[in-house]
Amino acid sequence: MAGDERFQPRDASVSPRFADVATFMRCQRHEIAGEIAGEIDVGLVGVPFDLGANYRSGARRGPAGVREASRLIRRVHPTSAIKPFDICNVADLGDCPVNPLDLDASVRLIQDYFERLHAARIVPIAVGGDHTIPIPILRALARERPVGVLHFDGHANTLDEMFGTKVNHATFMRRAHEEGLVDAERVIQIGLRGSRFGDDDIGYGVDAGYTMITIDDYEDMGRAKAIEAIDRVLGDGPVYISLDVDGLDPAYAIGTGVPEIGGLLPRDVQVMLRALSGKELIGADISEVAPDLDPSGLTCITAANLMFEMLCVIAESVATRKDGMG
Amino acid sequence: MAGDERFQPRDASVSPRFADVATFMRCQRHEIAGEIAGEIDVGLVGVPFDLGANYRSGARRGPAGVREASRLIRRVHPTSAIKPFDICNVADLGDCPVNPLDLDASVRLIQDYFERLHAARIVPIAVGGDHTIPIPILRALARERPVGVLHFDGHANTLDEMFGTKVNHATFMRRAHEEGLVDAERVIQIGLRGSRFGDDDIGYGVDAGYTMITIDDYEDMGRAKAIEAIDRVLGDGPVYISLDVDGLDPAYAIGTGVPEIGGLLPRDVQVMLRALSGKELIGADISEVAPDLDPSGLTCITAANLMFEMLCVIAESVATRKDGMG
Amino acid sequence: MAGDERFQPRDASVSPRFADVATFMRCQRHEIAGEIAGEIDVGLVGVPFDLGANYRSGARRGPAGVREASRLIRRVHPTSAIKPFDICNVADLGDCPVNPLDLDASVRLIQDYFERLHAARIVPIAVGGDHTIPIPILRALARERPVGVLHFDGHANTLDEMFGTKVNHATFMRRAHEEGLVDAERVIQIGLRGSRFGDDDIGYGVDAGYTMITIDDYEDMGRAKAIEAIDRVLGDGPVYISLDVDGLDPAYAIGTGVPEIGGLLPRDVQVMLRALSGKELIGADISEVAPDLDPSGLTCITAANLMFEMLCVIAESVATRKDGMG
Amino acid sequence: MAGDERFQPRDASVSPRFADVATFMRCQRHEIAGEIAGEIDVGLVGVPFDLGANYRSGARRGPAGVREASRLIRRVHPTSAIKPFDICNVADLGDCPVNPLDLDASVRLIQDYFERLHAARIVPIAVGGDHTIPIPILRALARERPVGVLHFDGHANTLDEMFGTKVNHATFMRRAHEEGLVDAERVIQIGLRGSRFGDDDIGYGVDAGYTMITIDDYEDMGRAKAIEAIDRVLGDGPVYISLDVDGLDPAYAIGTGVPEIGGLLPRDVQVMLRALSGKELIGADISEVAPDLDPSGLTCITAANLMFEMLCVIAESVATRKDGMG
Amino acid sequence: MAGDERFQPRDASVSPRFADVATFMRCQRHEIAGEIAGEIDVGLVGVPFDLGANYRSGARRGPAGVREASRLIRRVHPTSAIKPFDICNVADLGDCPVNPLDLDASVRLIQDYFERLHAARIVPIAVGGDHTIPIPILRALARERPVGVLHFDGHANTLDEMFGTKVNHATFMRRAHEEGLVDAERVIQIGLRGSRFGDDDIGYGVDAGYTMITIDDYEDMGRAKAIEAIDRVLGDGPVYISLDVDGLDPAYAIGTGVPEIGGLLPRDVQVMLRALSGKELIGADISEVAPDLDPSGLTCITAANLMFEMLCVIAESVATRKDGMG
Amino acid sequence: MAGDERFQPRDASVSPRFADVATFMRCQRHEIAGEIAGEIDVGLVGVPFDLGANYRSGARRGPAGVREASRLIRRVHPTSAIKPFDICNVADLGDCPVNPLDLDASVRLIQDYFERLHAARIVPIAVGGDHTIPIPILRALARERPVGVLHFDGHANTLDEMFGTKVNHATFMRRAHEEGLVDAERVIQIGLRGSRFGDDDIGYGVDAGYTMITIDDYEDMGRAKAIEAIDRVLGDGPVYISLDVDGLDPAYAIGTGVPEIGGLLPRDVQVMLRALSGKELIGADISEVAPDLDPSGLTCITAANLMFEMLCVIAESVATRKDGMG
Repeated sequence: MAGDERFQPRDASVSPRFADVATFMRCQRHEIAGEIAGEIDVGLVGVPFDLGANYRSGARRGPAGVREASRLIRRVHPTSAIKPFDICNVADLGDCPVNPLDLDASVRLIQDYFERLHAARIVPIAVGGDHTIPIPILRALARERPVGVLHFDGHANTLDEMFGTKVNHATFMRRAHEEGLVDAERVIQIGLRGSRFGDDDIGYGVDAGYTMITIDDYEDMGRAKAIEAIDRVLGDGPVYISLDVDGLDPAYAIGTGVPEIGGLLPRDVQVMLRALSGKELIGADISEVAPDLDPSGLTCITAANLMFEMLCVIAESVATRKDGMG
Repeated sequence: MAGDERFQPRDASVSPRFADVATFMRCQRHEIAGEIAGEIDVGLVGVPFDLGANYRSGARRGPAGVREASRLIRRVHPTSAIKPFDICNVADLGDCPVNPLDLDASVRLIQDYFERLHAARIVPIAVGGDHTIPIPILRALARERPVGVLHFDGHANTLDEMFGTKVNHATFMRRAHEEGLVDAERVIQIGLRGSRFGDDDIGYGVDAGYTMITIDDYEDMGRAKAIEAIDRVLGDGPVYISLDVDGLDPAYAIGTGVPEIGGLLPRDVQVMLRALSGKELIGADISEVAPDLDPSGLTCITAANLMFEMLCVIAESVATRKDGMG
Repeated sequence: MAGDERFQPRDASVSPRFADVATFMRCQRHEIAGEIAGEIDVGLVGVPFDLGANYRSGARRGPAGVREASRLIRRVHPTSAIKPFDICNVADLGDCPVNPLDLDASVRLIQDYFERLHAARIVPIAVGGDHTIPIPILRALARERPVGVLHFDGHANTLDEMFGTKVNHATFMRRAHEEGLVDAERVIQIGLRGSRFGDDDIGYGVDAGYTMITIDDYEDMGRAKAIEAIDRVLGDGPVYISLDVDGLDPAYAIGTGVPEIGGLLPRDVQVMLRALSGKELIGADISEVAPDLDPSGLTCITAANLMFEMLCVIAESVATRKDGMG
Repeated sequence: MAGDERFQPRDASVSPRFADVATFMRCQRHEIAGEIAGEIDVGLVGVPFDLGANYRSGARRGPAGVREASRLIRRVHPTSAIKPFDICNVADLGDCPVNPLDLDASVRLIQDYFERLHAARIVPIAVGGDHTIPIPILRALARERPVGVLHFDGHANTLDEMFGTKVNHATFMRRAHEEGLVDAERVIQIGLRGSRFGDDDIGYGVDAGYTMITIDDYEDMGRAKAIEAIDRVLGDGPVYISLDVDGLDPAYAIGTGVPEIGGLLPRDVQVMLRALSGKELIGADISEVAPDLDPSGLTCITAANLMFEMLCVIAESVATRKDGMG
Repeated sequence: MAGDERFQPRDASVSPRFADVATFMRCQRHEIAGEIAGEIDVGLVGVPFDLGANYRSGARRGPAGVREASRLIRRVHPTSAIKPFDICNVADLGDCPVNPLDLDASVRLIQDYFERLHAARIVPIAVGGDHTIPIPILRALARERPVGVLHFDGHANTLDEMFGTKVNHATFMRRAHEEGLVDAERVIQIGLRGSRFGDDDIGYGVDAGYTMITIDDYEDMGRAKAIEAIDRVLGDGPVYISLDVDGLDPAYAIGTGVPEIGGLLPRDVQVMLRALSGKELIGADISEVAPDLDPSGLTCITAANLMFEMLCVIAESVATRKDGMG
Repeated sequence: MAGDERFQPRDASVSPRFADVATFMRCQRHEIAGEIAGEIDVGLVGVPFDLGANYRSGARRGPAGVREASRLIRRVHPTSAIKPFDICNVADLGDCPVNPLDLDASVRLIQDYFERLHAARIVPIAVGGDHTIPIPILRALARERPVGVLHFDGHANTLDEMFGTKVNHATFMRRAHEEGLVDAERVIQIGLRGSRFGDDDIGYGVDAGYTMITIDDYEDMGRAKAIEAIDRVLGDGPVYISLDVDGLDPAYAIGTGVPEIGGLLPRDVQVMLRALSGKELIGADISEVAPDLDPSGLTCITAANLMFEMLCVIAESVATRKDGMG
């Protein structure tokens, strides 16, 4: 199946990869209000928002940074041989509206936007933005039924509040459960580590029944067993992927608000994402990319590559579902 | 007059300047709630807040950056020979409380804090933080009567609102006037330049009667005439100094949210600040220092030096008033 | 006159300036092959080419860097009050085709592309790319008659060849004259300085009759007299503007292939560009921006602002001509 | 056991972690000459000294860099659940006196200072400074009896002299043994690698009976066996920990004087430090952090986290001893 | 065997390693046209060429960067105890001639130069330059008979052409085979990964019979088995080593044109290189080092160390052959 | 007069400027012990020493940084048309011996080395190294009679001691006078500014009779009058030039130990150096270049260019003297 011309990345054999406007993976920029929106299968979206970050900010520039870095992504997955642009219509939808001065207003704008995507049956891959954004995204995508979540992160994000604020980058995995958006049985968190504010940092998830794989656990069990756990916990049913780049070791992702040493390798995440083949994937985010905090640019390069990994398995999942509907 | 030992910077002939905890200009860190607070004349204060910034954030780390850079400040002004630590009791008071997730709450916290300083007759030199902070500071310092303002900036900061928000880094010179905190006749803005959103960007100040010296004006008139204008406009009466580092040319202050090319030289600001000798100076801020955006560190070094310039004239002013009261 | 909606930059009061895909000054990205191409007055174009650079390369990434930095440009000129987007239809046309492995082929591709622009009566503002690019651009724009050139540069670019190559970043002002593309009487070069390979570095221009203002001359005569010289030399008739950012002092533009200390200030160039009001401006380039060589990002910020200066006078010139044709 | 208020870090739920003066892990800054010095259990101390470095200097700024980075440390260990600030009185004691122009004088000043700490029964965790500093520290701490040493490093530091100088960053593990400060049977060095000046680089330690685990050995035996070796070699009795950050792989610690590729992971060191539970820990240093050589800041972040690891096991050790004395 | 004085690196116990002109590993700079050229066994050569790179350029500055970083290399291998400067005459031969404006001319210049080295029986270790350079080098070294190749890379470099160009940094492993320069049976490629342009990216090598160890394979088989494969594939006969630093994980080598996440560790390459003991090594290159793209300098430090690894095994190989000839 | 082939820089039309080993201005590296030493007129020498610096160190890497940056220097002065390599034999003599661990020993080594140069009638241009180095240099060059000094600096360097040390980077202009090496009547210091430790910072020079032009003075009098003062003060007789790069504004030289805002422009120093034509110049230094503190590299580029300015006037002076001797 050859890809639709309107949804192909710029051809790197004609236009050098360093050339022209930076879009996600050199995809074409389409509007969700445009006439061809109905034909889009997977939407690559920026969410330039960082008012929910409590230490170092800067993730508002994440979408721009990842777009620029994603110039070097090509078209075919080297291991799975998936060609996402052949099997799905993929577009860069630009950035979701936000209010740069108002956390609450932004959260509402984000939710509204993803509701529109959801209504248009566009599966989103969002680039944050701080890790507040899964809350409004899940409110849009998981309204009908709670979903499973594969959550890579250095932190559990299950605090109740920070500085009196309930919706921020430290609380999404608590809020989402309280709101019935996630199915605790089908939640798995990987990469947890870092010193804690108190005993309560991960307590909520324990009580809720999340499967938590701390970095200690991960090292003990090995990646293969972790992949088995991912498969088992996520099971069947819809799955959302949330990747906070601070789940990665900071040697690969220093451009983030709250780095924690001793984290996952990009390779680990690559292989775990590839193993999602066959799951019903409904959306994903890559969050906490703060380009200005990484003078080498590696954080954005890593994020761009992991976005491609997500795209490959999501495109496969979407294509399968489309075929099933045929 | 020899300085009080409790208010002397660490002695650079004993403790190298690179040594020990970084405080503003190596001053001692005192609490305003402490027993000796009543003896403090000039308080050096950080205001680590940047939720009012609409382009690049990062000024929350300004106080830390300026403290670190201010290690190289010495004790005597090379031109005026003022020795601020001999004529006033100067202390690093730490950082003003803020809420990192709530713009409005932070504005209230900042106002409360500066009201306490004001009540304690401590003249503050604040290091921001984005340029929202003069609003709560002026609410605290200028409640009794409108004050004159010497305002260095690349932007007039007289918009009515941004994204529906009234108090942010683009509005302080409008809000302050509306609230009766500044005396428009005694306001002078220097360094204005940069492309504009619309005709209205500087209109409010024109209508209010501010004296505005754009960079074109500044170049035409020369620094000496600008100093005459400063002197004439500020006249007698209380004066507040507000320095947005984007008033400076970005070759000297790239670590800021909204740089504009073609700005003031640090030397210009140094000389203009020195010329304030004899004025009744009631406080000052240096805002929009975002250290992570300047890999060379020059922005913080420049800010630290301009803080010392402010300290010298403010200390002289305070000492004169104290003597007058003696 | 209100601007055509299809040619307006994204509205910064709705979409924050840091949001969405980076285009030049947040203008809309249009194709020159598109249906509305005939309505475009001014085309902002990248030329991502650096095979003509003989010391440090990296200017191939100039267009991407300037697009990203140009997010902070607003809509109204602070001095002239020109609103370029109201008086002209301005679009980001993407990047000109180039061959990243073949100097000669790229030069032909660039010439072809600008011939298309020229045929479509689109006035180009090009962002390079190394300073080879004015050769193919002038071949496209100046075929009918030789043009005047306002050339800001640290180097005269009048060598005969480098390493046996005739068309490269050190020869354009010689080739262009040899090919009858420039009117030597109407050429003015400003900012020349830097050590020389030999006596011949600037000799060609002397013989040809170029007006050369070295940095020594510039300092002696002052900016006002330089502006008079620009006005006198350029006179009436078509004018092309070529700005090599190494004409600027490297404190403002270290991100370039061959920096030379002691150069022009961005302010100088701003004011000289503003003084072109009334000239018949047919195109411009900003060259030798190599973003990876400037960790602070100032080079790109400076280039973006100078691009706005060019846009304002060019838009005025174009609008005048359109009116004259009405 | 709740922690003494005077020895608690600033509360991150009240004062954001980016706020206020940077102290080690946001602990309170106390003077060892102060009235409450007698109550301090663990002293966090900077030793801003780098005159003993023979390649790249800059470790004099290590304490400042680590203080700033340690803002993001929280209160509870994620694996051991140790809460160091609850079980010990911990303070930032500022920086040890040094002479920035005199190696020998500095070594004496450092020794004097640590003797005062030792006399006050304060267990020190020192942040260097180059790796000369363990010599004067051990002279202070190990005078009564030789101690065991857990030494992480890329180099054995057992040269006899460099450039005619006996006490410098390449000799401490030889001098300390010659002076009877370390018990060779209870010394273990981990991470040794890097090209050598000659056959003699590690010969002294071999002869003395040190247990040396080169990076080849470490890889062959695995971390678990290395931990067994650490446990066996250190045995009972007092243990000093010395961590040269060049023991780490330079991807995690490029900000150091003499990086060597192919080193330990921060995770390795974390786990090995955690395994010290139960040992009699008498002090520690983290050396060779040169912040200016790491533009990403990761070296300081890594050092701050490893300092927290040290603090947890040391606090446990101290608390156990205090209880034993109760 | 003591080394010849004329071929010894500067003595680090007399001249500090940071001192004097930077040559490779502080070796003496000799001319191949010089009188002692006939005595040189191993020549360290820069090839400052990057016109064959299709994404980010900058490898032209690789030789300068590696020379500077190689200051910290010492004289003895820590594991094998090889002392290369004692068993071979090693010299820094400066940089190979190139034409900075002409790809084809440069390729010819490089070939000519390495033919001269080959004729003089000097075994070269080249520092690129982009990965075009093995083509002319192999044309010089492998003319008599096809050679085995140990190829570390993130990419297979077996494309047929890019942008109409046959000799560039993406084609050398195809061209070399087509030209009969490599023995496909004795070619092994390690580290392949990264998204692909199409199905054809690695197809040529598959068809030719190259042994390819992708990063997936490498992880599955482990390093020990990879070393066995290297030994088996290379067998007896002449072997050339080609190391593209993008074979390494970008945490260790971000200063390169086309980084790919999830790569080899420097440690992996170190150990694999050490395992070449006993092979007939005829030359090597380290390519794609672009210093300006790595603000930390780690890429150059890594390259310098891997160059020392190569030197040790190559010197051993050369010394063995010399002995065999005795 | 054509230059001697053995003393010509590498030809940039044959070997690209980025190619080969970095020497000062691409000059040939000769040994002062070599056979042709007697023919060298001007020696370019590194002095990689920074043990005399009391704030930020790193100037030990200055010679390496300036060598690398000086690749872009060409052969002819653009204003004076001096061709230094045609009129003098110029060589890179490598680095002066130093002891990286011993301030006093280094000072002796430096003095010994410059005595050898002096004996060989080689006029040195030294690149530091911190600003301690003029003491041993002047001891070597000015032993016979006191010399005039043109001293560019942000600091007077006339303290009596720092931390008990008499010879360091803050004292050379006092020591040199006390030792009878400088003629106070013929000393001029330009660029003095920056906060002071005490009243005494510049007092010694005042008493001794130095002509001091603070930055305030410089601005008041203008550059032309400053040049007159230089001419008048230096008069006839031998002149030594000492340039601390912190005399420059830190926008141009942030890579230095103790930057001070509001300094000289590189252009100022260029023009003042050019005005030395006709003086009897006996040597020069450029000090306090610390490359690692300037991520942009501008400090080294500036230093390299100012070194070329020095070389031109010094070569002219030497050639004149040689002619006079002919």
